[in-house]
Amino acid sequence: MSRIKTYDRIVEESLKLFNEHGERNITTNHISAHLGISPGNLYYHFRNKEEIVYQIFRQYRGFISARLAVAEGQALSVDDLVNYLDTAFDAMWRFRFMFYDLPGMLARNAQLQQDYHQFVHTELKGILAGHFREFIRMGLLKMDEADIEPVTLNIWLVVKFWFAFEQTAHPGEPITEADSRRGVRQVLSLLKPYVQPDFLSTFTSLSARYVD
Amino acid sequence: MSRIKTYDRIVEESLKLFNEHGERNITTNHISAHLGISPGNLYYHFRNKEEIVYQIFRQYRGFISARLAVAEGQALSVDDLVNYLDTAFDAMWRFRFMFYDLPGMLARNAQLQQDYHQFVHTELKGILAGHFREFIRMGLLKMDEADIEPVTLNIWLVVKFWFAFEQTAHPGEPITEADSRRGVRQVLSLLKPYVQPDFLSTFTSLSARYVD
Repeated sequence: MSRIKTYDRIVEESLKLFNEHGERNITTNHISAHLGISPGNLYYHFRNKEEIVYQIFRQYRGFISARLAVAEGQALSVDDLVNYLDTAFDAMWRFRFMFYDLPGMLARNAQLQQDYHQFVHTELKGILAGHFREFIRMGLLKMDEADIEPVTLNIWLVVKFWFAFEQTAHPGEPITEADSRRGVRQVLSLLKPYVQPDFLSTFTSLSARYVD
Repeated sequence: MSRIKTYDRIVEESLKLFNEHGERNITTNHISAHLGISPGNLYYHFRNKEEIVYQIFRQYRGFISARLAVAEGQALSVDDLVNYLDTAFDAMWRFRFMFYDLPGMLARNAQLQQDYHQFVHTELKGILAGHFREFIRMGLLKMDEADIEPVTLNIWLVVKFWFAFEQTAHPGEPITEADSRRGVRQVLSLLKPYVQPDFLSTFTSLSARYVD
């Protein structure tokens, strides 16, 4: 059996517990009991739960950055659009506890708040706008430069709050991967009015992949 | 001075306190102290805080229903579109504490969860779809019948989570009416690709009203 470091196991299993029960309902005692380690051993690696949450956020950021990155001079294709959407919802799914009550969680964790803000409202906004310009240049989408920012923001809002929305639409039921697929379809509906006629059939068959 | 009943004062002042400090941070003791009444007097009217929250939700529902209602056979105008958007954000602003952590609040209040679900996911969805069909019939918007549901849902998502989004974008700053105006512009950006050419200049001057 491979030897996984305690530090990594704490992060990994905390993510599972947070996703399943909500971060507010899980204490460091729950985490150490679940791992079969002493609270002292956990505190050797992390001073408090906020530090674990912060490490999970770093994984989330790394996951998105790596998968949205475009190599210098590389052209995008329609498949890239699909991959970006899959990445967005994959990330939402893997790290879903973060989005159950994001404003509340950020308010309780100053370091997380600062880095989250920097990542999403500065870095990610620029990356997404760059992708849009490339899709416009390719003739896949037709929109004015002034439309890019509000449309990007709408996409971000739908992705970010989709699971919270589904929770109020189906109270008491757990979030499933089918909810993710409905989320992708919902994002595609934001792009649909901008899709150029030549690409419409490709776009329609793309949307069909996400039917429940 | 007009005599306002204690019951109504409790509801009204609770709404103010919840909006200002968040519902989770306010107890029935805070409310009675703020009103200068005894906890016993408050408990004479409400068994617990959840009952107060539920009464506030009833006000919210009544406010929206009254202002979105269309009399039988009455034609809509572009001004109605403006009024509907103002209503949506007016309601968000007046009852903003409800939307800070809606899934969490519903999870703690079974009666509220049931009625909220019935109102939003059944009643309101039908009302909004009816308005869309009327705007299409008037020639203000052009969209397929199949587009109505996803677009309505996108609007609802943006309205509902706008303040939560603004909170993570500007951490620590209170929500203001300027945030509401930005929210209206954001909703208008969802409609823009469907606006018919004849109405585009009206639509543009409409959007300009909501610039900060």
